[in-house]
Amino acid sequence: MELNFRSDNESPAAPAVFAAVAAANQGTAWAYAEDQWSALLDDAFSGLFATPTTVIPVSTGTAANSIALACVTPPWGSVYCHRNAHILNDECGAPEFFGGGIRLVPVDGENGKFSAGALETLIYQNSGHGIHSYQASAVSITQSSESGTIYQAGEIQAISETARKQGMAIHMDGARFGNAVARLGCHPADITWRAGVQMLSFGASKNGCMAAEALLIFDNPDARESAERLRKRSGHLLSKMRYVSAQLLTYVEDDLWLTMARHANKQAATFADTVTRHPGASLEYSVEANEVFVKWTPDGFKSLENAGIQFLTWPGREDLARFVFSHCTTEQETTFLCEALTTRKTP
Amino acid sequence: MELNFRSDNESPAAPAVFAAVAAANQGTAWAYAEDQWSALLDDAFSGLFATPTTVIPVSTGTAANSIALACVTPPWGSVYCHRNAHILNDECGAPEFFGGGIRLVPVDGENGKFSAGALETLIYQNSGHGIHSYQASAVSITQSSESGTIYQAGEIQAISETARKQGMAIHMDGARFGNAVARLGCHPADITWRAGVQMLSFGASKNGCMAAEALLIFDNPDARESAERLRKRSGHLLSKMRYVSAQLLTYVEDDLWLTMARHANKQAATFADTVTRHPGASLEYSVEANEVFVKWTPDGFKSLENAGIQFLTWPGREDLARFVFSHCTTEQETTFLCEALTTRKTP
Amino acid sequence: MELNFRSDNESPAAPAVFAAVAAANQGTAWAYAEDQWSALLDDAFSGLFATPTTVIPVSTGTAANSIALACVTPPWGSVYCHRNAHILNDECGAPEFFGGGIRLVPVDGENGKFSAGALETLIYQNSGHGIHSYQASAVSITQSSESGTIYQAGEIQAISETARKQGMAIHMDGARFGNAVARLGCHPADITWRAGVQMLSFGASKNGCMAAEALLIFDNPDARESAERLRKRSGHLLSKMRYVSAQLLTYVEDDLWLTMARHANKQAATFADTVTRHPGASLEYSVEANEVFVKWTPDGFKSLENAGIQFLTWPGREDLARFVFSHCTTEQETTFLCEALTTRKTP
Amino acid sequence: MELNFRSDNESPAAPAVFAAVAAANQGTAWAYAEDQWSALLDDAFSGLFATPTTVIPVSTGTAANSIALACVTPPWGSVYCHRNAHILNDECGAPEFFGGGIRLVPVDGENGKFSAGALETLIYQNSGHGIHSYQASAVSITQSSESGTIYQAGEIQAISETARKQGMAIHMDGARFGNAVARLGCHPADITWRAGVQMLSFGASKNGCMAAEALLIFDNPDARESAERLRKRSGHLLSKMRYVSAQLLTYVEDDLWLTMARHANKQAATFADTVTRHPGASLEYSVEANEVFVKWTPDGFKSLENAGIQFLTWPGREDLARFVFSHCTTEQETTFLCEALTTRKTP
Repeated sequence: MELNFRSDNESPAAPAVFAAVAAANQGTAWAYAEDQWSALLDDAFSGLFATPTTVIPVSTGTAANSIALACVTPPWGSVYCHRNAHILNDECGAPEFFGGGIRLVPVDGENGKFSAGALETLIYQNSGHGIHSYQASAVSITQSSESGTIYQAGEIQAISETARKQGMAIHMDGARFGNAVARLGCHPADITWRAGVQMLSFGASKNGCMAAEALLIFDNPDARESAERLRKRSGHLLSKMRYVSAQLLTYVEDDLWLTMARHANKQAATFADTVTRHPGASLEYSVEANEVFVKWTPDGFKSLENAGIQFLTWPGREDLARFVFSHCTTEQETTFLCEALTTRKTP
Repeated sequence: MELNFRSDNESPAAPAVFAAVAAANQGTAWAYAEDQWSALLDDAFSGLFATPTTVIPVSTGTAANSIALACVTPPWGSVYCHRNAHILNDECGAPEFFGGGIRLVPVDGENGKFSAGALETLIYQNSGHGIHSYQASAVSITQSSESGTIYQAGEIQAISETARKQGMAIHMDGARFGNAVARLGCHPADITWRAGVQMLSFGASKNGCMAAEALLIFDNPDARESAERLRKRSGHLLSKMRYVSAQLLTYVEDDLWLTMARHANKQAATFADTVTRHPGASLEYSVEANEVFVKWTPDGFKSLENAGIQFLTWPGREDLARFVFSHCTTEQETTFLCEALTTRKTP
Repeated sequence: MELNFRSDNESPAAPAVFAAVAAANQGTAWAYAEDQWSALLDDAFSGLFATPTTVIPVSTGTAANSIALACVTPPWGSVYCHRNAHILNDECGAPEFFGGGIRLVPVDGENGKFSAGALETLIYQNSGHGIHSYQASAVSITQSSESGTIYQAGEIQAISETARKQGMAIHMDGARFGNAVARLGCHPADITWRAGVQMLSFGASKNGCMAAEALLIFDNPDARESAERLRKRSGHLLSKMRYVSAQLLTYVEDDLWLTMARHANKQAATFADTVTRHPGASLEYSVEANEVFVKWTPDGFKSLENAGIQFLTWPGREDLARFVFSHCTTEQETTFLCEALTTRKTP
Repeated sequence: MELNFRSDNESPAAPAVFAAVAAANQGTAWAYAEDQWSALLDDAFSGLFATPTTVIPVSTGTAANSIALACVTPPWGSVYCHRNAHILNDECGAPEFFGGGIRLVPVDGENGKFSAGALETLIYQNSGHGIHSYQASAVSITQSSESGTIYQAGEIQAISETARKQGMAIHMDGARFGNAVARLGCHPADITWRAGVQMLSFGASKNGCMAAEALLIFDNPDARESAERLRKRSGHLLSKMRYVSAQLLTYVEDDLWLTMARHANKQAATFADTVTRHPGASLEYSVEANEVFVKWTPDGFKSLENAGIQFLTWPGREDLARFVFSHCTTEQETTFLCEALTTRKTP
């Protein structure tokens, strides 16, 4: 047993995905995304999302996010996102770099999500300085959120409408997009373009791939040029892109991505149940995807570590820990974790 | 009577300063800051500040601030400043632009000032993500502050020590530096390099000049190269710099700058007294320099406007207005304003 | 006598221009280019150029050039300009900085000018790498050129047509635009928008102003937003812009700018005649504006210096020197220079 | 038979490299280059290069080049490189982007190489404008060059000395570094740090890997911080870096990289021999690595294409074509190509 609940980033690639990479490793193929696998991406994702979709494969989510935001934000534009957003806290300023000095504006909100109302109020508060301040240019929603929660289609729709009234573009950071779709049981379109989202960073690395992400642009073929220029210029146009594209194709084939996300979500839900019934520990956020944030005592967490369980104590919060479940977390491992928690009283 | 209390930015140049510009307009002079006036700046300011000082004349405070911050902050570095800071709210991202995508981090604090303690706490809170987040690289203090308040030498010292412990550089935005020195009655060195400040944006435009600011670098001649390169590269190396330098020389001669600042401060104090004694209006911040922020009713402010008085209603706050007093505000004008307020009951 | 032929950048402001600044220094005025002088600029220049013109006043030509180029060039775009262009050699990368890493591409051509044919060939040669290379986005013509020569309207027209076929924008660096119009005796429109130029850096500092330049945008009001954002963001929105705008208004009133340019051109022509008749010295470029490039022996130049004459020996070329004539060069000074050359045999 | 001589970028990964990736795909591993494979890189390359070496694994050569140059070049600095350099022509301005608007300066030279003398002359020619122009900050040498030629250790040494005298940093783009070492039969150190090279973009993707490159920094551990920050900030810190690091470790184990490069070089040499003996075709550059540039008639090239042979006709040169040989080019394929050329007279 691995007992590694630190991050889904630490999981290996799923066997089917790896087999696709092996299959792509036969013979020569055109370089720089002109290969036969990359050529299939637009069709595959247009089908999946039921609308014409431009696919820009890259190898990291930071690249997808930053290219997306730089495409729709002038250097003097700002991007509104949740205070906990990955683009704000965990990308070392990549959006600012790609965008030529854009600014990210944190929006507060409970459960790792912000509301259309909070967004609107903040935009209004920041609007009094005219040309002396940043221009509100885009909004970025993380789905599922950094707190393991999920925006309902209606919530996204409301945010999009608020943004659109201001002439702002709408981006979704979908590093864990599969977990959201799996949980909601909706069509992928329902929480993206049908709800006003124009660009999606479609994540796959965390959910069964080696290094495969894609920037999806819905129904706007003219945006390809900028996105491709930015990808090349930032060093993200892999010469052997076939390996990334082959992963993506297999990942979305036969709902593999949803099957894996559903599995991860289920493990998280099982553990969340256990936490809820525990006398000392409690959930920091409602558990809706594959992440479980547990509030407990430092000694309590230590006792789990002593049992060989690996997880992340939150930076600056010794009473908070994150447990992440992935496509390869076994039921055995989840059971072990649940039992370890249950048998430990709060020290 | 002008009755213009909107901003000291709207005042004309003082007669002595204008005379200096006229005197500089005789014959030819070397271009690009190699003229005879510019050549005197280092000595003049080294004398004024009682330490070797490198002077980089520019024509706007935004240029001085941005060059300073870009000199000491890598693109992945962050600059801590007050939530109301001009660099944060009123420069349309110039620091981010000059710095190649640096980030400004707002620090909260009452009366337009932040404390060493608040700074330390926030740096600590932001420090858990390592290389995935920005590196705390500089702190910027506005003196006098955007709220018309003043940092005591000891407060600056404490902030500097906190910053230095983190390896951060210390910058002061002195757009209204003269008003602070005039109020404190201290040596300019006491609230700058002796208190740990390494770079000062020395403002003069608001206090009697036409367009004259200077970035001062204390006791660090090696920093000149970067600052001069950034000045040139941002289009701020005027070919006829003599006109800026001539203003600066006269501005600091015979304490002209302090005489003018003292006058402005005095007018503000007079008005602040009146506000304090008014039954309906009140001061939003303590009045320590040349700005007075008044809390009152919208109808009250309207009645002043009807009396021909010009001032700034704060963006997004209809119950708050700013009155600024300058070197050229006459006592008559101040008296008129005070009487106008006094005779108006709160509607 | 000054005997300073180093640069027109070293000349003082003309009396009328200085008087306009003095007149503007009365009372308060709205800050940040919302003053009454700035408000007149669009009309004044629309009249002068006989087409709706957006005026963005700034204090340096580098700012005007860089804002213009950044407005029309994406970060992955390139700007074609002459190998001797000021933007390429003398702005320390300001266009690259403002444009987020654009590239300048030098075009060769005799007499400081390039032809439409040379431009077309070079664009074609650089076009084979597709998305792996820069996108040809703009062309910049200097008028009058860095070599003191002048593009005829037809030459500009041909360059514009070549550029337009590639979807490129057309910019003119008019640091010495007045000298060109004075020489050609044409309407300013004839060598700008009527010949396809979309943006003009209209220079005034070298020809009688203190620090006054303007970016002119012809017949494209939508471009104002980007230009103003870039001006603010680069620290070039002076709080007391009235002083710049007042200069510009007087400069173009009653053809003052052309009168001054004509005077400077005439002095240059007089000296050029003398050079032509000299047995040892010769002209490097044809003299069409206010600059004279003289080829001679190092000892010859030294003998002029010994006579108290100041000029610029060209960097890296000890057999080449530049003599610049300005609005304030007196006929006496020109005569002295001519005689000094004539009486000196080539050593 | 593939008969694909278009580019070594189109080759698949070598079996041993792929096996290493498969082996790395077992169980969980720490994310963001804190895995057990990445932990071995510094030791492996320090051993290979016989000096303390900092290894920054990335997935593209453009990333390695751009991070390296941005580390050693201020925004106002220029990088000298050959006119045919990949960083100049094929990275869509990535160095300019990473470096915040740096400039690349093309140096001319025969056979795809430039000399220390040509470098020195050009630096001198560009040095006359002082702060008004770029500062010469770095030099970048491509080894083996874009023309398939190789710098001798002494040539590199001479370039390094010239650069060092100017305070410039020395970078090597080693996209095909293995081919150079294989050809020279020298120690890798001989043409890198022992010859003055401070940073090497060590390429592996073209020579048997899927997507694996590394920036190597010799004997300068302090440079790690900037390089890692830039990697993260540009989106190049893969969460599952283990897959890249595993490739690199196997690639340099037991001289696999040299074995593969030697094979490719040998195929190229065989074809070069054939070209030399052909009555109509000729070599454009001397063939020293794995690339062969052939000068022939357009109809000649067409006849090869008709035989099913794939290669690259050079952009803008219909009389020039490039044939690249890789680790997986079979002798059969080479023989087929040679015979195809031999049996075709020049049309």
